[in-house]
Amino acid sequence: YSLSKMSLEAIRYANGELSIIDQLLLPHQTVYIRIASCEEAWSAIKRMQVRGAPAIGIVGSLAMAVELKSPDTLSQVDSSAKLSAWLGAKWDRLVSARPTAVNLQDSRERMFRLLSTDWSAMDVAGQRLAAVEWLESQLEQDVRSCRAIGEAGANALLQSVEERGLVPPGGQVNVLTHCNTGSLATGGYGTALGVVRSLHNRGRLGRIFCTETRPYNQGARLTAYEIVADGLPGTLICDSMVAAAMASGRVHAVVLGADRIVSNGDTANKIGTYQIAVLARHHSIPFFVAAPLTSIDFSMRTGSEIVSRSGRPTSWPALPANELLVAALTSGIRRSTLLRPS
Amino acid sequence: YSLSKMSLEAIRYANGELSIIDQLLLPHQTVYIRIASCEEAWSAIKRMQVRGAPAIGIVGSLAMAVELKSPDTLSQVDSSAKLSAWLGAKWDRLVSARPTAVNLQDSRERMFRLLSTDWSAMDVAGQRLAAVEWLESQLEQDVRSCRAIGEAGANALLQSVEERGLVPPGGQVNVLTHCNTGSLATGGYGTALGVVRSLHNRGRLGRIFCTETRPYNQGARLTAYEIVADGLPGTLICDSMVAAAMASGRVHAVVLGADRIVSNGDTANKIGTYQIAVLARHHSIPFFVAAPLTSIDFSMRTGSEIVSRSGRPTSWPALPANELLVAALTSGIRRSTLLRPS
Repeated sequence: YSLSKMSLEAIRYANGELSIIDQLLLPHQTVYIRIASCEEAWSAIKRMQVRGAPAIGIVGSLAMAVELKSPDTLSQVDSSAKLSAWLGAKWDRLVSARPTAVNLQDSRERMFRLLSTDWSAMDVAGQRLAAVEWLESQLEQDVRSCRAIGEAGANALLQSVEERGLVPPGGQVNVLTHCNTGSLATGGYGTALGVVRSLHNRGRLGRIFCTETRPYNQGARLTAYEIVADGLPGTLICDSMVAAAMASGRVHAVVLGADRIVSNGDTANKIGTYQIAVLARHHSIPFFVAAPLTSIDFSMRTGSEIVSRSGRPTSWPALPANELLVAALTSGIRRSTLLRPS
Repeated sequence: YSLSKMSLEAIRYANGELSIIDQLLLPHQTVYIRIASCEEAWSAIKRMQVRGAPAIGIVGSLAMAVELKSPDTLSQVDSSAKLSAWLGAKWDRLVSARPTAVNLQDSRERMFRLLSTDWSAMDVAGQRLAAVEWLESQLEQDVRSCRAIGEAGANALLQSVEERGLVPPGGQVNVLTHCNTGSLATGGYGTALGVVRSLHNRGRLGRIFCTETRPYNQGARLTAYEIVADGLPGTLICDSMVAAAMASGRVHAVVLGADRIVSNGDTANKIGTYQIAVLARHHSIPFFVAAPLTSIDFSMRTGSEIVSRSGRPTSWPALPANELLVAALTSGIRRSTLLRPS
């Protein structure tokens, strides 16, 4: 299938061909690169040409579908044992490109669970077909999940700002977001930015403020780019301007994404998230975390159990960026509301 | 006189010669440029080779002293009327380089007040000598004032963190600052960074955290440079990392500068100041504003009366930077303590 044009297409998959926007060239150039194998996906993930946990998982899955359908692979995997070994090796290689991206590991586990249950009675041709269909469905699944988050989030956000009298019934809402949680991080609609898109589709978005999101500038480079590409009314602000924007009455609500949410609601996300949560509470502005169910980790009770899995190099050796990344918890901030796909 | 080496010398004045560090080349190159006339000072101020209200006022005063002492000027100003006209024209020219820098305008007014009072009975030679001495004293005056702020600030800060039990008696303090308030913004010791230097001189500084201070990066470019130049234990963090650093217990106190302080204690300063004040209050961390008496404007009752005088161009046309700059008030934050030179 081909993804209908609803917003910026960071991942294109049609007629068995996969291509992605090279995010390293954004926002100055919009160039699609072809991904014809798992090895090319590995390289694109490694080089950060694609980023964002959901997007990495989808690109990995689709690259595997492309390669699994190729005549070369057909001749190699002529038994269930060989197919299983082939898939295991490919997943291991993909996971090695970004060991911190939980989605690749999750996809690997879910596929092998299916192989040993639902697909176990099939012959190798049936298993191969089932695997291809499952891999190809990951993009559509993500878009469906993001659209549901967007709709549920827009409902919750509008209800909250109207109840608090921050905007009149039916009025337009100014929303602030942090980092990138849009088309470029997911399969094409976004989590937190999906909520913003849903508000815009309903004619209820006044303005979306996005922070630069230092030190990697995902807000300035990616979210601002998506805002311009989709024609949303937006303003880019520095991370230091959040409180002033709130105090001036320009911001009615905050919505942003999550790397992981644990049992008590504590949320780990990009550095700066906790700071915005504190500022939102001080200014009595509702604060929403938009994330799919797969981001919830019930194995942990509180955020203090989360340890950083980021091995990302930092440009300042003096800066304990990884440690600070972990500290970005909404611990103690009880305004956050978890949005579940309805 | 020559300024004794106590810290980075951003302004050098000795034997009637003035030179300044070209701040446009920092932090990569440390180059001193000679300022031999008011016109060269005008150009250096205009091009931002010198910045920070106190430093601009000092460079303007010293450039005028240099020019007033030159043989060329001697022959031009052979009467009190001509001297007065000459000084008026030079001040007007200097003020035109940065109309928003209150210090230049203040120096002009103070000098003309002296001309019409203390110096009124002198002949032109006496007036010229008095003017030169007064102009040359501005640098020493600023350093004396900053040292007094530093000592008073260190006393107040240490007392506060010990009373709150944030550090044990005699223990070392970790301090966070914002923007640049050091040697590069003043005559050589700094206001808020003067407090930090005083703590360091007493062996009481654990670590100084400085923010990048987006969008112009005064923290990353200038404060971090001063920290390295003076060998202070320091860490540069993103503006988005302040809350996480506070939550982790790494920050015991905040000290930063002020553009203007009004009667009720409301303080206007670089964008991000109000945000840090809110975060300090949330984390029960003392928040200090270090500024000379000349920064206090008793003509205004609250911060809401302050309008931005910044005509500075912004690199984002979409961003209402000037408006946001004004919003950086500590309004409602009652933790701030005004430090007066003792």
